[in-house]
Amino acid sequence: MLVHTVYFWLKPELTAAQRADFRKGVESLGGIKAVQQLFVGTPAKTVKRPIIDDSYSVALTVVVKDVAGHDAYQIDPIHLAFVERFKTFWSKVQIYDAE
Amino acid sequence: MLVHTVYFWLKPELTAAQRADFRKGVESLGGIKAVQQLFVGTPAKTVKRPIIDDSYSVALTVVVKDVAGHDAYQIDPIHLAFVERFKTFWSKVQIYDAE
Repeated sequence: MLVHTVYFWLKPELTAAQRADFRKGVESLGGIKAVQQLFVGTPAKTVKRPIIDDSYSVALTVVVKDVAGHDAYQIDPIHLAFVERFKTFWSKVQIYDAE
Repeated sequence: MLVHTVYFWLKPELTAAQRADFRKGVESLGGIKAVQQLFVGTPAKTVKRPIIDDSYSVALTVVVKDVAGHDAYQIDPIHLAFVERFKTFWSKVQIYDAE
């Protein structure tokens, strides 16, 4: 099992409609065949602690089978379309791949 | 659904046995009642990119129902025992809570 986690920091000037579009775009990644599970969220209202980073805009957690599944995800047309459409929306992206 | 993700940077001086113990300790968190799903991993062998942080030692992804589930997880005796036993093992921990 490989967990591909992505944190997006969206540009502050984005409109609410653009943020909603982005959210839908992230959720569309669940349609990728290699994806076993997908979770999309925003910073939760857990008690604030210095070790918690809640500065990001959207978190994406994707579960795939293995590195081959991850690689298939990366080149899937749905993923490529997502990146092409939304790549100007974020100012920073941070990825963790754990297996 | 709330995804509680924790990245641990273990102290370099830990022995292989200590690292194995730590891994088992992280996996023991799956026994907590509030936990719906738990994934434990180390940096995957995906293609290196500047946006990927692979400097951590162990990644833990915990899925709980909501903030109440997260709060129950935090004070569960299994979690408290884990922190008590292993808190000297890491040099840094970074948490993201997304809902």
